[in-house]
Amino acid sequence: MTRPVTIALDAMGGDHGPSVVIPGAALTLERRPDARFVIFGDETQVMPLLDAHPRLKAVTTFHHTDVSVKMDDKPSQALRYGRYKSSMWRAIDATKTGEADVTISAGNTGALMAMSKFCLKSMPQVDRPAIACLWPTVRGESVVLDVGATIGADARHLVDLAVMGAAMARVVFDIDRPTVGLLNVGVEEIKGVEAVKEAGRILRESNLPHLAYHGFVEGDDLGKGTVDVVVTEGFTGNIALKTAEGTARQIASYLRAAMSHSLMAKIGYLFARSAFAALRDKMDPRKVNGGVFLGLEGIVIKSHGGTDAIGFASAAELGYEMARENLMSKVREMVAATARSEAAAQQAATAE
Amino acid sequence: MTRPVTIALDAMGGDHGPSVVIPGAALTLERRPDARFVIFGDETQVMPLLDAHPRLKAVTTFHHTDVSVKMDDKPSQALRYGRYKSSMWRAIDATKTGEADVTISAGNTGALMAMSKFCLKSMPQVDRPAIACLWPTVRGESVVLDVGATIGADARHLVDLAVMGAAMARVVFDIDRPTVGLLNVGVEEIKGVEAVKEAGRILRESNLPHLAYHGFVEGDDLGKGTVDVVVTEGFTGNIALKTAEGTARQIASYLRAAMSHSLMAKIGYLFARSAFAALRDKMDPRKVNGGVFLGLEGIVIKSHGGTDAIGFASAAELGYEMARENLMSKVREMVAATARSEAAAQQAATAE
Repeated sequence: MTRPVTIALDAMGGDHGPSVVIPGAALTLERRPDARFVIFGDETQVMPLLDAHPRLKAVTTFHHTDVSVKMDDKPSQALRYGRYKSSMWRAIDATKTGEADVTISAGNTGALMAMSKFCLKSMPQVDRPAIACLWPTVRGESVVLDVGATIGADARHLVDLAVMGAAMARVVFDIDRPTVGLLNVGVEEIKGVEAVKEAGRILRESNLPHLAYHGFVEGDDLGKGTVDVVVTEGFTGNIALKTAEGTARQIASYLRAAMSHSLMAKIGYLFARSAFAALRDKMDPRKVNGGVFLGLEGIVIKSHGGTDAIGFASAAELGYEMARENLMSKVREMVAATARSEAAAQQAATAE
Repeated sequence: MTRPVTIALDAMGGDHGPSVVIPGAALTLERRPDARFVIFGDETQVMPLLDAHPRLKAVTTFHHTDVSVKMDDKPSQALRYGRYKSSMWRAIDATKTGEADVTISAGNTGALMAMSKFCLKSMPQVDRPAIACLWPTVRGESVVLDVGATIGADARHLVDLAVMGAAMARVVFDIDRPTVGLLNVGVEEIKGVEAVKEAGRILRESNLPHLAYHGFVEGDDLGKGTVDVVVTEGFTGNIALKTAEGTARQIASYLRAAMSHSLMAKIGYLFARSAFAALRDKMDPRKVNGGVFLGLEGIVIKSHGGTDAIGFASAAELGYEMARENLMSKVREMVAATARSEAAAQQAATAE
């Protein structure tokens, strides 16, 4: 029998705080009945909600906190007044002490990353952590990173991203050697920043056992699912992610307008409504909610701040899976193997 | 009476060469009956097609060329063997000499940009040219640039992009003071590259007469049409553009699958088919074909290489409009006004 997974929750994070987090946790428990919870937040707000969800309450350890990080706080502000005592910090700390296996927060991304780095620390050999997301594709899903942890990347950092993303893909897709592509532009010769070319060279030459380097991919390869893992630095990754979300919403609004434009269209809509429901479900952004912080000594998942209970439950379930499948140790193992393989290559080069 | 617009065409550009370019030009002529054409290409391929389109032939000056730039040539290769004599070069040169008002090519982007820079030269005060596109939004269209001319940008170049993009927006949308946003990421504090912040400061403080600086925008603002002009450097812009195209194709494939999944859905589709046709039309990438090269002493439009006659005609019509509305002189005037206003600000600062 496997050990239950314990999920630490920052109940005060997100635009709607406990009113989304607690029902979201209840939904997670329905789907993952062996989950356990450690919840941090203001007791006057959280306890009535827990009382309304007795099954959740039965598997939850609750800790009252006086301080909540606000959605528009700067990371430095949040650290100053929220360190050691905010619901966000304590939820992260629970993963550090081992009280929990994974931390979920819908709080502000900058503060969550700053606190996670400060509390959990980066893995040895990883300079900077990253945020990875699951990107829906016509073939299924891909891991895309970095979608906004740090701006700019040298070749070294891009290689780290490739290795960490491949580790996550192994866990999520259960494949031993995920394909990895570097996001680049397709215009010949003027193309590409030096860091991307150099990272490509390193990945090609190092020929890692758990990563199949595919080469460069372009923006339209994201939706095609050309590779299991798409690597880019945080500025471009964040803009690509939000551009895709925006395009999806834009087309959904075109579709709504088209289907209500004429009587015939409305009749057609009625006939096809289960097909539209399936489509809406497929395009539902709540189903792919959750940014996974990689490169830290602990798993932290960022939920969208504006999501509802269903969306929060998706993030919590993603965290559950990552903890259940030992994402941490897989990442650590692959980072170490990469360092060894590079050291060996360097030694061989020196010996020549 | 206005002077007719003369369009120079590289008949050999694109995946399908004259078989797309000539019917595309014929279509353009149907929609813009006062257009005139100067066409460059291999006579054995082009003449039979022109013979099949006698009305086009009647308003066309044709020049035979022996050399064609290939789609996978590097810009340096293309320049070496194609300068002065390829269909691409001669089509650009026609705009330089004044034989034409605008050049259209579906040939390879890198070669077209390299030849355009070499032949037409950059405008004074503009360091690097850019490629702008029209981005469909829920509110209409926005100008987005740079979508791939150069990689990376300092604050100075981003300000140039803002000014050139605003000039194009004035022409295309017929508004006097277009709103301009700088593409950035929304994560607090760790956010944004220094160049983007600095460009924002310059745009805010210079308070230009023909440009209303809006502030930062994010990836999802592209589809929303939050601003008339979205500015970013070429790497991110190219990836955002291709990501949006990829997402649109992805959702179209979901929609097709949903509508053929059950009998009810198929019946619904039949009822709503004119609505679907309208939607398909709205999402048709051929309708927004055409990258406008800005910052050069002449207008060059890049058509998608893989498009058909309808798509090529869109690019040609875009070129027609840009020439008709004197895009060049508007860009030149705004670039000069910006330089003057900055010089005045500098003088004022020095005098203090």
